[in-house]
Amino acid sequence: MAEPIPEAVPVVTAAILVIGDEILSGRTKDKNIGYIAEYCTNIGVDIREVRIVPDVEEEIVAAVNALRVRYDHVFSTGGIGPTHDDITADSMAKAFGVPIDHDPRAVAILTEHYAAGQLNEARLRMARIPAGADLILNKVSKAPGFTLGNVHVMAGVPSIMQAMFDEVAAKIPTGTKMLSRTVPVGMGEGRIASKLGAIQADYPDVSIGSYPKMLDGAFATDIVLRARDAARLDLAAQAVEQMVAAMMQANS
Amino acid sequence: MAEPIPEAVPVVTAAILVIGDEILSGRTKDKNIGYIAEYCTNIGVDIREVRIVPDVEEEIVAAVNALRVRYDHVFSTGGIGPTHDDITADSMAKAFGVPIDHDPRAVAILTEHYAAGQLNEARLRMARIPAGADLILNKVSKAPGFTLGNVHVMAGVPSIMQAMFDEVAAKIPTGTKMLSRTVPVGMGEGRIASKLGAIQADYPDVSIGSYPKMLDGAFATDIVLRARDAARLDLAAQAVEQMVAAMMQANS
Repeated sequence: MAEPIPEAVPVVTAAILVIGDEILSGRTKDKNIGYIAEYCTNIGVDIREVRIVPDVEEEIVAAVNALRVRYDHVFSTGGIGPTHDDITADSMAKAFGVPIDHDPRAVAILTEHYAAGQLNEARLRMARIPAGADLILNKVSKAPGFTLGNVHVMAGVPSIMQAMFDEVAAKIPTGTKMLSRTVPVGMGEGRIASKLGAIQADYPDVSIGSYPKMLDGAFATDIVLRARDAARLDLAAQAVEQMVAAMMQANS
Repeated sequence: MAEPIPEAVPVVTAAILVIGDEILSGRTKDKNIGYIAEYCTNIGVDIREVRIVPDVEEEIVAAVNALRVRYDHVFSTGGIGPTHDDITADSMAKAFGVPIDHDPRAVAILTEHYAAGQLNEARLRMARIPAGADLILNKVSKAPGFTLGNVHVMAGVPSIMQAMFDEVAAKIPTGTKMLSRTVPVGMGEGRIASKLGAIQADYPDVSIGSYPKMLDGAFATDIVLRARDAARLDLAAQAVEQMVAAMMQANS
């Protein structure tokens, strides 16, 4: 007997846009994608796509405009510092077709932060915020990020980005959390693939992924089941566990 | 006196396409992007864009078709295993509009690798290769990747991907290497930003990036200069070093 498919639940989608030549050259290894992705899973936001683009205005504009119409939120990291290669704020203004100038709220934050005479022209660039944006505060460097429409523009330095993401996450609406269960299997996925496919067919509302890995020189597999409905997730996980137990017994 | 701009040199561009729900959920932290990016910089291939998409056929097709017309090469990772959620090979065939079936060369490799009776239907899925593709061999798992047009389709498991990338890198033409020099600066970038911008204006053919970081709780900066012409790179790096030395002296 087929199980009833649960009713639709609220889903919130998002994309991550990483901006920076240093990631594309491999000099800096990105740490923000994994952090944001895991955080979002935990709060009920589905990351559906990630793009990494260089510090080139037309590339940033094209990417953010492609992503912001497609997903509920876009989280960008990188390019909001004081140097000539930090062009994210201006690119975002261009993407939205809004003016950009020194924002009095941001200027006030920086004025309070820096000692007299230290808030030079370059640092003041960090107060350039597109018109209509809300600031994203951060306690680490003080220089704010901003939210423009559904795009949340954050720093690239992980400690600063993480402080900003706490602010963003507290404000955006979230959906029903995607729950997950992992069934570790001490076999290569080639041996369980056929039976696993049959279980997936029985549970179309549960996403079943098979992730091979090397463990002490031999192949092992993590079966990861994901669903928003806890009862359905349990049923599918039990089916996988029973399948694995039966195979182990047949081999012993 | 303005320096002469060097003549155009051969540039080879590429994009990375990471395929997999497990990366977007944050469960698995990608290790392939940084590896491929750094490798490409070292052999003279410029990574210009990265996308991460889910295990959804239309998303894979759309991304690979957007990237393959725009860059000289596309390197994809993930989704070529034996389980139901591995749909990359079929998606690539669809993107190129070519048929896909068990490839005799791939079947021969798998037949030789597995003990009698072990090459089940699921494992045979790993021999499904789009028509017209060349195989990418790998010594770790034996199951091949493939090159279809300018798209190089590799496994997601890092050790297997790395073995495959060695094969790919040996075959593709490469361009003039992008050279780089790093000037570490024991100051936050806000203090050097203005003078650094002036140096960038003097050296439009050298890409000068400023990368802030936290060092023992204080801000420090790496100035990274990149160019294909070694002489121009040296000149620009000297200008940055002199600027930093002058600032340190003025502060002491």
